[in-house]
Amino acid sequence: MTARFRHDHLLGIEQLDQNDVLQVLDAAEAFFGVSRRPVRKVPTLRGKTIINMFFESSTRTRTSFELAGKRLSADVVNISASGSSVSKGETLLDTCRTIEAMRPDSVVIRHAASGAAQYVAERVRFAVINGGDGSHEHPTQALLDAFTMRRAFGTLQGLKVAICGDVAHSRVARSNILLLRMFGCDIRVCGPRTLMPSHVAGLGVRRFDRTEDALDGADVVMLLRIQRERLEGSLLPSLREYSRIYGVSERQMKVAAERAIVMHPGPMNRGVEINAALADGKRSVVLDQVEAGVAVRMAVLYLLSKEIKAGSLHEATGAEA
Amino acid sequence: MTARFRHDHLLGIEQLDQNDVLQVLDAAEAFFGVSRRPVRKVPTLRGKTIINMFFESSTRTRTSFELAGKRLSADVVNISASGSSVSKGETLLDTCRTIEAMRPDSVVIRHAASGAAQYVAERVRFAVINGGDGSHEHPTQALLDAFTMRRAFGTLQGLKVAICGDVAHSRVARSNILLLRMFGCDIRVCGPRTLMPSHVAGLGVRRFDRTEDALDGADVVMLLRIQRERLEGSLLPSLREYSRIYGVSERQMKVAAERAIVMHPGPMNRGVEINAALADGKRSVVLDQVEAGVAVRMAVLYLLSKEIKAGSLHEATGAEA
Amino acid sequence: MTARFRHDHLLGIEQLDQNDVLQVLDAAEAFFGVSRRPVRKVPTLRGKTIINMFFESSTRTRTSFELAGKRLSADVVNISASGSSVSKGETLLDTCRTIEAMRPDSVVIRHAASGAAQYVAERVRFAVINGGDGSHEHPTQALLDAFTMRRAFGTLQGLKVAICGDVAHSRVARSNILLLRMFGCDIRVCGPRTLMPSHVAGLGVRRFDRTEDALDGADVVMLLRIQRERLEGSLLPSLREYSRIYGVSERQMKVAAERAIVMHPGPMNRGVEINAALADGKRSVVLDQVEAGVAVRMAVLYLLSKEIKAGSLHEATGAEA
Repeated sequence: MTARFRHDHLLGIEQLDQNDVLQVLDAAEAFFGVSRRPVRKVPTLRGKTIINMFFESSTRTRTSFELAGKRLSADVVNISASGSSVSKGETLLDTCRTIEAMRPDSVVIRHAASGAAQYVAERVRFAVINGGDGSHEHPTQALLDAFTMRRAFGTLQGLKVAICGDVAHSRVARSNILLLRMFGCDIRVCGPRTLMPSHVAGLGVRRFDRTEDALDGADVVMLLRIQRERLEGSLLPSLREYSRIYGVSERQMKVAAERAIVMHPGPMNRGVEINAALADGKRSVVLDQVEAGVAVRMAVLYLLSKEIKAGSLHEATGAEA
Repeated sequence: MTARFRHDHLLGIEQLDQNDVLQVLDAAEAFFGVSRRPVRKVPTLRGKTIINMFFESSTRTRTSFELAGKRLSADVVNISASGSSVSKGETLLDTCRTIEAMRPDSVVIRHAASGAAQYVAERVRFAVINGGDGSHEHPTQALLDAFTMRRAFGTLQGLKVAICGDVAHSRVARSNILLLRMFGCDIRVCGPRTLMPSHVAGLGVRRFDRTEDALDGADVVMLLRIQRERLEGSLLPSLREYSRIYGVSERQMKVAAERAIVMHPGPMNRGVEINAALADGKRSVVLDQVEAGVAVRMAVLYLLSKEIKAGSLHEATGAEA
Repeated sequence: MTARFRHDHLLGIEQLDQNDVLQVLDAAEAFFGVSRRPVRKVPTLRGKTIINMFFESSTRTRTSFELAGKRLSADVVNISASGSSVSKGETLLDTCRTIEAMRPDSVVIRHAASGAAQYVAERVRFAVINGGDGSHEHPTQALLDAFTMRRAFGTLQGLKVAICGDVAHSRVARSNILLLRMFGCDIRVCGPRTLMPSHVAGLGVRRFDRTEDALDGADVVMLLRIQRERLEGSLLPSLREYSRIYGVSERQMKVAAERAIVMHPGPMNRGVEINAALADGKRSVVLDQVEAGVAVRMAVLYLLSKEIKAGSLHEATGAEA
C-alpha cells in the first residue's frame, strides 16, 4: 500500500522528514528497473503535462527529468531562458502564471536565485519541483545521492560522509547535508576556508582543513565541482594549486573506509577536484548516481501527481505503457 | 455535425469571415475542457506531425502550440532559427520545402517578415499556421482574444474595444481590429501619434490622443506591449514618460464600462503600459487569454487537419487518448 | 524474413559491405510509405529512448532523426552543445557515459571532430549513429543518397557519378565515395585543386579540373555545399569566381546522360554551386533526398534496435501505432 506523499511540491530537503525521504527512495527503487527493461516505459502519468523550465542551462538535470517524464508517459515540454519571455523582461512570476494558465501538472524550475522555486510554489497551483535554486537547494540531487549511498551500504543511518570543495556556495552540498543529518550521519566538510560555510556548528557538520583528516574512516567521499567562475572572485587559488592541495586521488582515499565510495554530482573537472583514475575506478559511483537520478525523478513526479491511488505503486511501475 | 473548415491554412484574420471565426471559437469551446481534465489529452491527431518553426523567439506562443499539439496526441517537433539552416544562408523557401519533404501535417511559422506565412503557404502542401509575421498578423492571438471576450460578454457583437499602445507596428492589434470589425465592434485606438496607424478610417477604427477618451464606456481595454526597441528609433518618449501619459491603471478604468475587462497579449511590462494592480486585479483576463490560447490552437490544428470526418467534434474532444 | 543487422553501431560506410547497405536500403523502402500515410506512425520502437546529441548545429539532420524516431513511437530527447555540460568543460566521454547511465537505446552524435562517433562507440553500451563527424563520414547521408539513386535508376551498379565542390573536406563526399565504390560506380570528382583530395587513386575516383569533363555522360551530378568559411582560409576564390567556373546549371548538364539527376545534400547556396533553375528543375532530386532521409533513418534506428525478431520487418512497418 502506498501512502499519499504529504507535500504538494518538492522545494528542498529542508521541508522533508525521514519518512518523506524514505518514501521517495522506496518509490525510486520501484521505478529503478523501468529504465533497464526492453520497453523503458510505464503508462503511469499518461495525459499529464510536465514542464522543464530551466533559467540556467543544464544537460544532465534537464535530460534526466525529461526522460523520467517520458518514461512515465507524460507529455514533457522544455522551456529555456534564452529565447524566452524572460529575455523580454517578464517577471518570473508572470512567466510562471502564464505557464500555470496552460494547465501543467508539474513544473521543474532551475533558477539562479535562491528561493525561486518556493517563491513560485506559494503562488501557483501546479506542483513545483526545485531543479536547483542559486546556492540554496537541489533536492533531487540529494535524493539521488542518498539512493546511491543506500544501495551501496544498505542504509543511510550513521554513515561517515566527507564533502570536499566549495561547500559554501553549493546547493548540492547544502541539500545533502540537510538530508544526511536526518539519518545521523557523521558529516565532514573540507576545502579552502574561503569556500567553507561560516556556521558549521549550526549545520551539524565538522570542518577540516586537510583532506586527509576529513576522509579518515569515511564511507562516502563526495567531491564537488569547482566552479571556474569562483577563480575570478579570488575565492580560490589557481586550479593547479587547488588540485595539488584539495584534489582527491586513490592516495588520499587510503585513510577512508575500505569499502568507501566516491561520489560527484558532475560535470567533473578531471584533474582538478577529482583524479581521473579515481573517477573511473572501482570506488566511483558517479554513473550510478546518474542512473539513480532518472529513477528518483520518476518517483518524485509520480508522488507529486494528484491522481495517485493508494496501493498503486506496484501498478505504477509494473505495467508496460 | 461539424462542417469542414473551408481553409487549408490559417494565414490571417483577413482571409476569414464571421462563420470561420465562429467555427474556430466553437471548436475551441469544445477543446477548452480537455486541458482541465485529469488526463489532459485526446487521441484526435495521433500519428500527425506538427512542426513549430520559430524564426523569432517566443516562449508563450511556441509552448502553447506545443501543448496544443501534444494534447491532441500529435508528434510535435520544434525548430528555431538559431542553430538552423537559416543561419547557414538557406532561403526561407528552401527551408520550408525541406521540411515539406519530411511530410508534416501542419507547420506553425513565426517570422520577422510580414507575409512570410502566406509566401510559404502558396508554395507547399502542408497546412501553414501563421504564428506571427512581422507587423502583419497574429491570427491565433486575435482568435484567443475573441474567445476570451466572448466568454466574458456572451457575444462579440457590438463590443466597445479600446486598443492602447503601439498599434501601428503591432500584428496583435492588426489581427484584432480585422476580427472585431466583422462583429460590428466600436474600435478605438490610442497612444502616441508616432505609434498610431496612418489610415485609421480605412481600418474602421477611431483614433484618440487621450487614454480617457478611448476608454470612455469601453467593454474591453486591450493594452499592447511596448517594444523597448522602439525607444531607440525615437518613436517613443522614455518609458517613464510613456507610462505617465499612456499607462493604464484602475484610475483610467473609471470611465470604462462597469464590467470592463483588461487584456494584454503578454509579456507585460508592469509599470509601463499596465499598472501592476490592474494586471493582477479582478478586471484582468490576461491569464484567461493564455488558457484560451491552448484551446484555440487545438481547435485550429484540428480544423486544418485533412482527415476530419463530419460530425466528429464531439468524438474529437470526448474520448481520452 | 529479416536477417539481424550485423553491426551494433552505424559509424561509417567504411564498416559496411554491399549486403549491409542493401539491407538498410531495403528496410528504408519498407519504412518509406509510413510518412505518407494519414497516420504517419508505427509502434515499432515504443518504449525505446533515442537521444539526438548535436555538438554542431543542424536543422535537417536533427529534425530528420527526430521525426524518424517519433514515427517509430520511440521517445526522443534532443541535446545540443550550447547550454550543455560540454560548455562547462566536461569531456566528450564523460558526457556520453552520463547519457549512457540514463539507459538510452540509440544516440545520434554529430561532432566537429573526425572519429568522435567511433571513439564513443568503443566505450559505451548504446547504439551509436554517426550523424556527421568532422570531415570524416556522414553515413546516413550517403545511405539516403544511395536510396535516392536506386529509386531513380533501379540499381546502384555501375552508375556514373560526378561529385563537384569541396570534396577534400566533405564528409558527405567521403561517405558517398566509399558507398558507390562498393557498387562499381564510375566516380568523378571536380572542383578547385585546393578542394580536391590528394590521393584520388587510393579513393578509387578520377579527378577533373573542368566541370564539363566530369559531367560527361554522368547519371548523377552531386553538388556539394560550398562552406563560406573556406573563403577565409584562402582555399577558395570568391564565391562569384567559384560560381562562374564551377557552378552548375542546365548548360553544364547538357553533356550528362539524358536522364541524369542532380543531387545536393543541402542547405543549398543558390547561385553559387547550383543554379536556381537547376535546383528547382526536373532533374533535381534534392527534396527526394530529404524524404529518403526520414525513411533511411527509420531503417537505421530499427536495424540497430536490439529486440528485433527475425521476420518482423513486415510487422514493423505494417501496423499503425
